[in-house]
Amino acid sequence: MAELIAFPRGVPPPESFPKEELVTSARNVILNEGDQILQYGGSMGYLPLREWIADNFDTQPDRVIVGQGSLQLLDTLIKTSLLPGGHVFIEQPIYDRVLTLFKRGGAEIHGFMLREGSVDLGEIELVLKKGVIPAMFYVIPDFQNPSGAEMPLETRKGLIELANRYDFLLIEDGAYRHLRYVGEELPRLYDLDPEHVLHMSSFSKLISPGIRVGYMVGRKDLIETLASYAENTYINASYINQAIISDFIERGLMDDHIDFLKNLYLPKWKKILEALDLYMSGLGEWIEPKGGFFTGVFLKNEKSLPDARTLQDHGLMLMDGCGFFNEGGDNFIRLPFAAPSFGQIETGVRTLAEIL
Amino acid sequence: MAELIAFPRGVPPPESFPKEELVTSARNVILNEGDQILQYGGSMGYLPLREWIADNFDTQPDRVIVGQGSLQLLDTLIKTSLLPGGHVFIEQPIYDRVLTLFKRGGAEIHGFMLREGSVDLGEIELVLKKGVIPAMFYVIPDFQNPSGAEMPLETRKGLIELANRYDFLLIEDGAYRHLRYVGEELPRLYDLDPEHVLHMSSFSKLISPGIRVGYMVGRKDLIETLASYAENTYINASYINQAIISDFIERGLMDDHIDFLKNLYLPKWKKILEALDLYMSGLGEWIEPKGGFFTGVFLKNEKSLPDARTLQDHGLMLMDGCGFFNEGGDNFIRLPFAAPSFGQIETGVRTLAEIL
Repeated sequence: MAELIAFPRGVPPPESFPKEELVTSARNVILNEGDQILQYGGSMGYLPLREWIADNFDTQPDRVIVGQGSLQLLDTLIKTSLLPGGHVFIEQPIYDRVLTLFKRGGAEIHGFMLREGSVDLGEIELVLKKGVIPAMFYVIPDFQNPSGAEMPLETRKGLIELANRYDFLLIEDGAYRHLRYVGEELPRLYDLDPEHVLHMSSFSKLISPGIRVGYMVGRKDLIETLASYAENTYINASYINQAIISDFIERGLMDDHIDFLKNLYLPKWKKILEALDLYMSGLGEWIEPKGGFFTGVFLKNEKSLPDARTLQDHGLMLMDGCGFFNEGGDNFIRLPFAAPSFGQIETGVRTLAEIL
Repeated sequence: MAELIAFPRGVPPPESFPKEELVTSARNVILNEGDQILQYGGSMGYLPLREWIADNFDTQPDRVIVGQGSLQLLDTLIKTSLLPGGHVFIEQPIYDRVLTLFKRGGAEIHGFMLREGSVDLGEIELVLKKGVIPAMFYVIPDFQNPSGAEMPLETRKGLIELANRYDFLLIEDGAYRHLRYVGEELPRLYDLDPEHVLHMSSFSKLISPGIRVGYMVGRKDLIETLASYAENTYINASYINQAIISDFIERGLMDDHIDFLKNLYLPKWKKILEALDLYMSGLGEWIEPKGGFFTGVFLKNEKSLPDARTLQDHGLMLMDGCGFFNEGGDNFIRLPFAAPSFGQIETGVRTLAEIL
């Protein structure tokens, strides 16, 4: 049997890792700053990196916490801010790991469908008007995982307006924001309202997932609460990893590296859109992503993804769409295009169309 | 004013960090294994390191999980195994951060005093006989933080017997076990009963705290539960850090490095015991530790540690003893001796005696 074509999680390909430069950065920071970074540290994270992040958000480092990936920080936020039975609003589909965290936290989850790439503000306000105010509303405005959607500017503004009127916190996950292949950058929700938005992001898609460095930027009191809980949980996330990234940035490598990544992913992005047009037109609808790692196909005519065993018999590995939904999702397929090769993208999409 | 003499947390001195060797290991693993370790990984941790740990415990890697420090793994254990109101047994004094975790988990905490370096088995059985069975009993048998006590062999055997008779889990924290300055090694609780003991330890005191690599060894079902919760919380702890330690070990550097550490700490250990004899004999009692980072002084005649401000006015920084007790602790002083210099140890203990 041919090799299994995996459209797995949102992983970058190994050729995207700047190994040589990471070796240099590791050497720099261990030798020059070893006394500090090999020691315990404060749970807010390594200051030079927090300063760089703060600059990027036009704010101060006391509004920035760095941890072992942004998911862990979100888990900490849930543990400190969400009571069991508390309301959480999400887009549907949603990044499956975040859905798991909300479920584990005992949240009452309200999913708002992405229709043509956007949630419906009216639908959201209907719920708010009933007095159902969420502890948090989690969104990925830029190149959403798993659908690839980009939140329109009017939706961004509308969400901020609702967050102000009904006083709730928007969690903006910006993991893919810097990987734009076409179109003009839209403002972050955070830029529109730093008091009602907590921005989370990481270096997993920009440098390496394995380095496990993510961050949150938001209201000082929230960041302090996170830092206190983090200290009591794991003392601090490794400064070595954070300092390596900071050194990589200080040496001026980040912009070129992001360009390198875009050049690596752009042809794959083109390839999957071509393959979808060629093979899937009659079977489903999808959002043409302007960046990121994913496109998501919504199957038409009540079709659904065959089970994992059937897929495997045809040489495919795909995640069950239901994992991205609080309810439903049978007809959804996430297609990550950053890691597979051109041949795998072509064959994978064609095979998928054949068995649907 | 003179520089503040800090007897702070259990931190190693910067001169203990093997910087050059860590640079070499970082280079080795990023260049040779970058495709794997810079990627996401399984939440159990980097296999070669888990294999080495398993060998050390005469078991298989499926009984080993590696995480971002052992405290985080303990937090995960508490979140997965301890219901609010569940019973937890501890030694008193106890490592303060662990006490915080148990309190946060809503545990009903039962503290058993260390008397002449050991808990009293009869006292423990009295509670067990009442039907109060703990979800876990946390102990540091080797060079306890904060008292320096070593659990006698008969206490180790007795605890195992109780754990079997009443069916509860012993959590054995071995963070300081490898730093023995005098005497013969006693068996780990884990060695006496791998089914009733979960051993936790880390490389914080052997290589670097900042590298944030700790582990747990125990029953397969427990380890699997931890791994599943960990994956849903932070995906995985950084394999880079784990691979660096594994490479350091594979290059045969660990034994020599531990000898280096012992040679670094042994004179400080002598120094603090001399200073205590000289200045504190009339004021308190302490355990002469056979290894580790700490000795703990129990003040006599209802004396207690002055407040932080008074201490600071005399050039001292010490942790409040009450943090190491579920109740009481006014008369307890933890004295960490690994990080301060000889002069700081001498002056610090003398000053402390003067103001008591």
